[in-house]
Amino acid sequence: MDKDEQALKQTKSGDFSEWYNEVVQRAGLADYAPVAGCMVILPQGYALWEAVKSWFDTRIKKQGVKNVYFPLFIPERLLKKEAEHFTGFVPEVAFIQETGEGGEKEKYALRPSSETIITEEFAKRIRSWRDLPLKYNQWCNIVRWETKATKLFLRTREFLWQEGHTLYETQKEAEKEVWDILHLYKELMETQLAIPVVGGKKTKKETFAGAEYTTSLEALMPSGRALQMGTSHYLGTNFSKPFAVRFVDRNEKEAIPHQNSWGISTRLLGAVVMVHGDDKGMVLPPAIAPTQLVIVPIIFEQSKAAVLKAAKELETRLQKQFRVVLDDRDQYSSGWKFNQWELEGVPLRIEIGPKDLEKNQVVVVRRDTGKKAALSLKDLETHIAGLLTVIQKSLFEKAKIWQDEHTVVAKTVEDIKQAIEKLSWAKVNWCGGECETKLEPLAADIRVLPEGEHATGSCVLCGKKATTVALVGKAY
Amino acid sequence: MDKDEQALKQTKSGDFSEWYNEVVQRAGLADYAPVAGCMVILPQGYALWEAVKSWFDTRIKKQGVKNVYFPLFIPERLLKKEAEHFTGFVPEVAFIQETGEGGEKEKYALRPSSETIITEEFAKRIRSWRDLPLKYNQWCNIVRWETKATKLFLRTREFLWQEGHTLYETQKEAEKEVWDILHLYKELMETQLAIPVVGGKKTKKETFAGAEYTTSLEALMPSGRALQMGTSHYLGTNFSKPFAVRFVDRNEKEAIPHQNSWGISTRLLGAVVMVHGDDKGMVLPPAIAPTQLVIVPIIFEQSKAAVLKAAKELETRLQKQFRVVLDDRDQYSSGWKFNQWELEGVPLRIEIGPKDLEKNQVVVVRRDTGKKAALSLKDLETHIAGLLTVIQKSLFEKAKIWQDEHTVVAKTVEDIKQAIEKLSWAKVNWCGGECETKLEPLAADIRVLPEGEHATGSCVLCGKKATTVALVGKAY
Repeated sequence: MDKDEQALKQTKSGDFSEWYNEVVQRAGLADYAPVAGCMVILPQGYALWEAVKSWFDTRIKKQGVKNVYFPLFIPERLLKKEAEHFTGFVPEVAFIQETGEGGEKEKYALRPSSETIITEEFAKRIRSWRDLPLKYNQWCNIVRWETKATKLFLRTREFLWQEGHTLYETQKEAEKEVWDILHLYKELMETQLAIPVVGGKKTKKETFAGAEYTTSLEALMPSGRALQMGTSHYLGTNFSKPFAVRFVDRNEKEAIPHQNSWGISTRLLGAVVMVHGDDKGMVLPPAIAPTQLVIVPIIFEQSKAAVLKAAKELETRLQKQFRVVLDDRDQYSSGWKFNQWELEGVPLRIEIGPKDLEKNQVVVVRRDTGKKAALSLKDLETHIAGLLTVIQKSLFEKAKIWQDEHTVVAKTVEDIKQAIEKLSWAKVNWCGGECETKLEPLAADIRVLPEGEHATGSCVLCGKKATTVALVGKAY
Repeated sequence: MDKDEQALKQTKSGDFSEWYNEVVQRAGLADYAPVAGCMVILPQGYALWEAVKSWFDTRIKKQGVKNVYFPLFIPERLLKKEAEHFTGFVPEVAFIQETGEGGEKEKYALRPSSETIITEEFAKRIRSWRDLPLKYNQWCNIVRWETKATKLFLRTREFLWQEGHTLYETQKEAEKEVWDILHLYKELMETQLAIPVVGGKKTKKETFAGAEYTTSLEALMPSGRALQMGTSHYLGTNFSKPFAVRFVDRNEKEAIPHQNSWGISTRLLGAVVMVHGDDKGMVLPPAIAPTQLVIVPIIFEQSKAAVLKAAKELETRLQKQFRVVLDDRDQYSSGWKFNQWELEGVPLRIEIGPKDLEKNQVVVVRRDTGKKAALSLKDLETHIAGLLTVIQKSLFEKAKIWQDEHTVVAKTVEDIKQAIEKLSWAKVNWCGGECETKLEPLAADIRVLPEGEHATGSCVLCGKKATTVALVGKAY
């Protein structure tokens, strides 16, 4: 592949959707699969998912959550036990009709979400308040037979996720966890993925099928569309009741536990591409970058041995503290390598050539800004650590400024329309009522009711007294 | 649950199969699912799987293997491209008939193994010898629609596994990896799971559908049945040819790469239960035990505060080096706790009571032998680390002695028959020919041709010149 072939054909400010597809594939994150509506998650994409998993998994384990694995197959009779849940999911459920062990024919859903089959097991595992809280989580594949066009990471018929399912003695404890998890997700997104998000409740219309209420985190993408980044649901006793989950409480009385579920998926990786990527390809936040720095030796024939030796020593030295790759491949030019690593989004490139050897220095280039600096080999670790922190912060801040600039306070429906045309979402006062449907002609809806914000004045849609602030936008 | 309810109803020397089921469920490893033929992997079981994953994943990553994720769905047309593979798998493949994005009806298999869909992607990803070797691995669920009765961990319609898929320039490199991986699996099984295994090639009859040859690791279970613990296949060009995977080699000529695949599954957890478990429940090898030691404070009213304080301090101290749980629950008696932790198989129990406080000591009890010892608080870490090493070794040695005692050199078919009746497998000389079928009346077959062993004399089955040693037994 020569240099011209390396360059992206699309630009971010051009056809955003085509640019996104090209970056995802060319940066080795994911590919279309030879099966309609599905994706292959390639090594770079999977490594990002592993970074997300590792960060989140460590934290929920500290809170006493236990990982488990439940079957992919959910008997239709179980899925039907919570009526709203079934109705909500059935249009996108894939079923297989198979013969059970006893010879009976049964219809099995490929799990669109596992509330039902996990609640069925919960009923077996609790007897007393001593068995609570019970906190399960699983990392698994999910099947939702989408009929809309596939979008890598954002909409595929199979994706990977984490689903937490927990049971508590009291509503208060359960509701506390709903928000604690939402805040933990927010921390993941903002400190690791460097993506600013707005958290809060969803409207009734957008509530998870079977939940009392849903909380969600939303991020505005450069396309002007909001992406739902993660959800945390309070299910109340909606599942535990029909599944007959009961326990003897502290007063020796039979009680029904309160239940939550919460999840994030590989969709997050799509957000990272959209928010940080540029016309050269992917830009990886250092916190989750599978490779944080690449060392490229600058080779001239007469100094080759010395430069390669120094590069190798540098790799050994920096590996102790960072995720490093030494690209000493002979068959590619330095220019080709620069382009390739920029395409993949590695945060820092370290060039080391004969002149650098003389001066006891290296040249360090930032992926996000392209800024070059010569750094002394002395204290190099401190400088690199500093640079990685700066890049991580700067990616977040840049995204936050963009999001703030694209958050428009709207006083009328016309304001909302104009905001959406300018790739923004609109912050409005809302009554909390049925008037939400008035947004349909704009192909927009209420994405989230931002936590901690309070409305004054009247509803932007119907003029009644406003009870809440709402963020309105187009969604993916 | 009182003490009598805590005790197992089955014994290992009684109905082995029922004992196994009881231990798996009561120790919180797995449960039957509300869907025929499937299992729920419970927290204790999943934590063991995570220990296996973490050990193996770290090692293959060091060898340059990259994790990926491919779709669960494999179009039937892909599965059919390698004829033997299709014929071998189709009896146990679950299919869904679904509508693709373009409106076409297509039959999708739920992956029974992913050679086909991964090879299809390989064709897109290599052009030149520079792109080789290409090493992918995925941790995922697998569906094989078994018609035999379910056995938790050993035979279920869905299970979890790891499947490695690699491509090499030359046959030599590929074949080297086949054995390297087999030896890495062996190290995992022997040093982590403490289970002795015999590795070697499988016979043609037992070769993976589509492979040139299969290597395997086999362990003899206390039931006298051999369990296939892991396999590593040399696929040659059997898949790369029909899938048109080609590359330009170092001589600028078009060449076909050589391919391997290899896997281990959650079945390994069943082997751990069978080999190490006893009449009190599970016995966990310290290397993979989610909890290595449990601290149980011995409570008397007058010394309660002091003992709890000391126990808490001990927990904090030992957590720095070991996986520790402090069981300071008020609602259970010490005796109940002892039984419960024995059922779960935690390697060491540490008791701390008022007398121990006086003497600056704790009482340490080994799960595997029941042996008790008072240990000084001084240098406690060193003693515990020593004990855990001893337990790990001793579990392996005990299993090895048992396996050696149940490995019988057989000179006649009658010898084989007798060996099998004595819950053993038989080591025989074999010609490598068609006479293998003569074992069918014994409901036995050749499990493996042990690596590094050489035959002399004549074939035990047909009298022709022996070419190899073979291990004959009943299989799970």
